[in-house]
Amino acid sequence: MREKGLLIVLSGPSGVGKGTVRKAIFSQPGTAFEYSISMTTRLPRHGEVDGVDYFFKKREEFEALIEEGKLLEYAEFVGNYYGTPVDYVRETIDSGKDVFLEIEVQGAKQVREKFPEGLFIFLAPPSLTELESRIVTRGTETEEAIKGRMKVAKEEIELMDLYDYVVENDHVDAACARINAIVIAEHCRRERVAVLYKKMLEAE
Amino acid sequence: MREKGLLIVLSGPSGVGKGTVRKAIFSQPGTAFEYSISMTTRLPRHGEVDGVDYFFKKREEFEALIEEGKLLEYAEFVGNYYGTPVDYVRETIDSGKDVFLEIEVQGAKQVREKFPEGLFIFLAPPSLTELESRIVTRGTETEEAIKGRMKVAKEEIELMDLYDYVVENDHVDAACARINAIVIAEHCRRERVAVLYKKMLEAE
Repeated sequence: MREKGLLIVLSGPSGVGKGTVRKAIFSQPGTAFEYSISMTTRLPRHGEVDGVDYFFKKREEFEALIEEGKLLEYAEFVGNYYGTPVDYVRETIDSGKDVFLEIEVQGAKQVREKFPEGLFIFLAPPSLTELESRIVTRGTETEEAIKGRMKVAKEEIELMDLYDYVVENDHVDAACARINAIVIAEHCRRERVAVLYKKMLEAE
Repeated sequence: MREKGLLIVLSGPSGVGKGTVRKAIFSQPGTAFEYSISMTTRLPRHGEVDGVDYFFKKREEFEALIEEGKLLEYAEFVGNYYGTPVDYVRETIDSGKDVFLEIEVQGAKQVREKFPEGLFIFLAPPSLTELESRIVTRGTETEEAIKGRMKVAKEEIELMDLYDYVVENDHVDAACARINAIVIAEHCRRERVAVLYKKMLEAE
């Protein structure tokens, strides 16, 4: 009897280091996650391989996939589309493997709507985790600089509401260890495990 | 700004190995949990120290504490009381440390009522996790033996409903690793972390 895989969505403010953490997770020996390769209409850069770095598509192909509901999320940046193909995600989860997405905050919102049972992890910038010490050392900053930082911090905290977990990116290795722990813990959740046991008994 | 500690309750059917797993967790270097010492009316055995192995109390002292509501849970076994003093648990949690209880299923039920925000972990016996393979190899057992085992398995699965997590005790080290991961993950839960950030901002 096989448990379904988890959809793990890592997101957070731009510049927080999502890509670095994702690369570190996939460079660990024995990583059990499947990385969901994004689809884009931008041209391959030197050395990028179709099906490895991205699925490279023509604009009309991408728009046809949007129409058919084949994208879990998508966005347009600087004239190019970027998105996550839904079929790969569903097939991998159904096969019992965990899928890992590393996407922008706007994309995470779309995924939450379509896939509420996903596991949403917010990567918090050290600037946010250092909020308290910044308040303490405020004497060294102008009133305006403090207000600006506080405004940004407030906006970042409001973004968290959509997520199940918040991981501080104080150090890449520490952030990866927390993400791994979260996935292990989620596989131990009673709802998930009890359903499996009950199915086994019913199969009797 | 300090986060409150967690109350971690490890329980499960008798004979599952709760004590062995608890000892292994506390023998790890750098364990961050505080072990909640039980209170009992039984006499100290050779080598047992008051305040280390147990708090040893007279029957009338123990009954007075029950009356005063000073026990998070208690039970009577073979003429002696065993219980968990509530003050130590509350004080330790308030100081920001995680408290670890290893108790019987009946005690865990009492704790859940008084402390619903605790983290309840069910240690599942390997006999339960091997349910599926047993079904497959049923040809080697009498019909009656299979029915008996299935009845026990069903009862064990029903017990799980009270818990947040189920950890299979297939190997002591693996069970400890899962418990540690669960505690790390719980400290990353958004509700918990966001409250702290919001408090920091309000302190502004």
